[in-house]
Amino acid sequence: MSIQQYVENVARQAKEASRLMASALPGRKDEALAHMADGLLARRDELKQANQKDVEAAQSAGLSAALVDRLRLSDSRIQSMAEGIRAIISLRDPVGEVMDGTVRPNGLRIQKVRVPIGVILMIYESRPNVTADAASLCLKSGNAVILRGGKEALNSNLAIARVLGDVLVAANLPAHAVQMIETPDRLAVDLLLEANDFIDLVIPRGGESLIRAVVEKSSIPVIKHYKGVCHVYVDDEADLDMAERIAVNAKVQRPGVCNAMETLLVHKGVAERFLPRIAQKMRQAGVELRGDELTRCFVPDMKPATEEDWYTEYLDLILSVRVVGSLDEAVAHIAKYGSSHTDAIVTNNVRKANEFVARVDSSAVLVNASTRLNDGGEFGLGAEIGISTDKIHARGPMGLVELTTYKWVVYGDGQVRT
Amino acid sequence: MSIQQYVENVARQAKEASRLMASALPGRKDEALAHMADGLLARRDELKQANQKDVEAAQSAGLSAALVDRLRLSDSRIQSMAEGIRAIISLRDPVGEVMDGTVRPNGLRIQKVRVPIGVILMIYESRPNVTADAASLCLKSGNAVILRGGKEALNSNLAIARVLGDVLVAANLPAHAVQMIETPDRLAVDLLLEANDFIDLVIPRGGESLIRAVVEKSSIPVIKHYKGVCHVYVDDEADLDMAERIAVNAKVQRPGVCNAMETLLVHKGVAERFLPRIAQKMRQAGVELRGDELTRCFVPDMKPATEEDWYTEYLDLILSVRVVGSLDEAVAHIAKYGSSHTDAIVTNNVRKANEFVARVDSSAVLVNASTRLNDGGEFGLGAEIGISTDKIHARGPMGLVELTTYKWVVYGDGQVRT
Repeated sequence: MSIQQYVENVARQAKEASRLMASALPGRKDEALAHMADGLLARRDELKQANQKDVEAAQSAGLSAALVDRLRLSDSRIQSMAEGIRAIISLRDPVGEVMDGTVRPNGLRIQKVRVPIGVILMIYESRPNVTADAASLCLKSGNAVILRGGKEALNSNLAIARVLGDVLVAANLPAHAVQMIETPDRLAVDLLLEANDFIDLVIPRGGESLIRAVVEKSSIPVIKHYKGVCHVYVDDEADLDMAERIAVNAKVQRPGVCNAMETLLVHKGVAERFLPRIAQKMRQAGVELRGDELTRCFVPDMKPATEEDWYTEYLDLILSVRVVGSLDEAVAHIAKYGSSHTDAIVTNNVRKANEFVARVDSSAVLVNASTRLNDGGEFGLGAEIGISTDKIHARGPMGLVELTTYKWVVYGDGQVRT
Repeated sequence: MSIQQYVENVARQAKEASRLMASALPGRKDEALAHMADGLLARRDELKQANQKDVEAAQSAGLSAALVDRLRLSDSRIQSMAEGIRAIISLRDPVGEVMDGTVRPNGLRIQKVRVPIGVILMIYESRPNVTADAASLCLKSGNAVILRGGKEALNSNLAIARVLGDVLVAANLPAHAVQMIETPDRLAVDLLLEANDFIDLVIPRGGESLIRAVVEKSSIPVIKHYKGVCHVYVDDEADLDMAERIAVNAKVQRPGVCNAMETLLVHKGVAERFLPRIAQKMRQAGVELRGDELTRCFVPDMKPATEEDWYTEYLDLILSVRVVGSLDEAVAHIAKYGSSHTDAIVTNNVRKANEFVARVDSSAVLVNASTRLNDGGEFGLGAEIGISTDKIHARGPMGLVELTTYKWVVYGDGQVRT
């Protein structure tokens, strides 16, 4: 079979499966999810054996220890995949919700009803746990999913997908509701991204270059975030103890993720008091600081920040720092250099808080809280499949509801257009 | 100025305008809309003069009388543009609506707040009234809009845009919130479709080939419908009087629009009773019929329908007719040949109605009502900017709400991630 035929088969089977999934009973989907969790645990040896091949290949290819570690499926990681699936069972099934309903003057009853999107293509990089997460979120929300993981994790991913697929059949759900692309050939991805008769949405997760390539090639809608260049702005009317707590948390608590702070903006009125103390705290936590000229007046021995720094998502213990003259300047900096992901203000002034909220155009804007809190779990959405910095369909954390769309259902008794 | 510079200027100015529009007061936006309506009426001579150039050019180019008519701006058409704008004033401003709000266990107050999308690019074909409609819907919903109309209507569109732009300045709103592309060069469109740093959403309106070209070229999200191949399925438990009323309305009331019926599916159990009478009614209304073999058994003298017919959006007084053996067959026909736009069942059986609703994956599914009722006005959304057959963001009629997105606004008192 040619790769073209293979991809078309996968896409067509997914579409057919999605039609059956759309009306699968909530109880049946939850039952399948429970069996998925059990299956992953019961077949952990099979998973670990497959994973061992990936780990050995990665080691011989000379991948860094960190990358090899991300790849590894230990007992505890298999355990947390299973727990992740069980957590999804407990979430409310979004399908069938009547989002809105009215009776029109002519007696027509109009309902806006939540339905699955259909077929979702997930493209992601190395961690194999994404396979189980994505499959279970798509399944619970009534979608069919095509998974395309990183080639380093192919054996692990195929083993996980095999377990999930067996369960689907046992639960009388369509086997093709979860499909893993079996070839590492990039042509498969290119072909999938053109299969807009069969695939309704693409969600890429990974580095910026992967995501840009997907957007460039896809004729299917894509929901994504390129990067998280997140800011904390410390206003001159901020509680500086709170500002310190928030800034340190936003930078240090988990620096490698998209909602970590990359740039600290400090109002000039508190720069002299705040900068030396926050610099000391950050350095104690191992953070390298890069400042503009004014910042370096207050904190000597700091590397100068270049124009490039303001655009950079470090994903590391590095922080750029800038002194701004006003809220206006802070908002303008965020508009120019930010990524519309997550930005926070620390202030006690309600007028400034409101202005910051109104003018900063990001998926989440926080007042007196850490950027790290922009998260599906923290927002009460349950598990998330990703964070969107797009304007369309979903913005910020994407949970089950964001994996659905709606249709209009109209009940009449013979109404016609006049 | 090169066309590249021109397009970048337009896009950049739109982005800047969108930042101001996002926090424009509802009262100010409504005031500007009122002045737009007044301005179009007051400057009708200017509009008609500009339009006369387009009409004359179209006539010399040998455009059909129908196309020339679509282009023409008469007093009554200017009057209805103004009335359309006034109708939009009376709609509820969607911006700022708190769609959802919760307090998390740690005291974080989370709000999901409706905000404008930002910059919208409208690409459309000849009718100049779309210019005023689209501009006023985008303005009311707090967006900036870039308009690219058909080249046949360029003078008319520029004149309309000039009136709208003058009003924006007078109302202290950003002049660049409404911009019309001044060149008919297609390169301008290609460049706009790559300007994803500035433009947030593309809405093409027109023929299928225009829309496919936009989707192919755009790296910006596109909301669209390719075509409306809409079906009415007459079940064997249908009230045949009602079925006749609905089918005739769906085909004949306005055949040139996307929610008109193109294919009639009739259950074999009522074919003998229903087909002769509906054929007679349709023929009386001037409809050409094309049927499958079984249909032609019951109604002789009918042209055979080809495989191509089932895929065709006639937009004309032509109807394809097919006899099906079951609801299953009707659903399968719609899945294969339909366009996910609008499909209806006529039946008195509640189980079959529910099954049709659950299994037909279209933007609107109607029970015992005409497909022509899938419309923003009929659904109570107010004016619509188009109908979407996409799964993402908006499905079915797109009104003001569908021209917005949301952001997460989070109020804390020092919360951090633990």
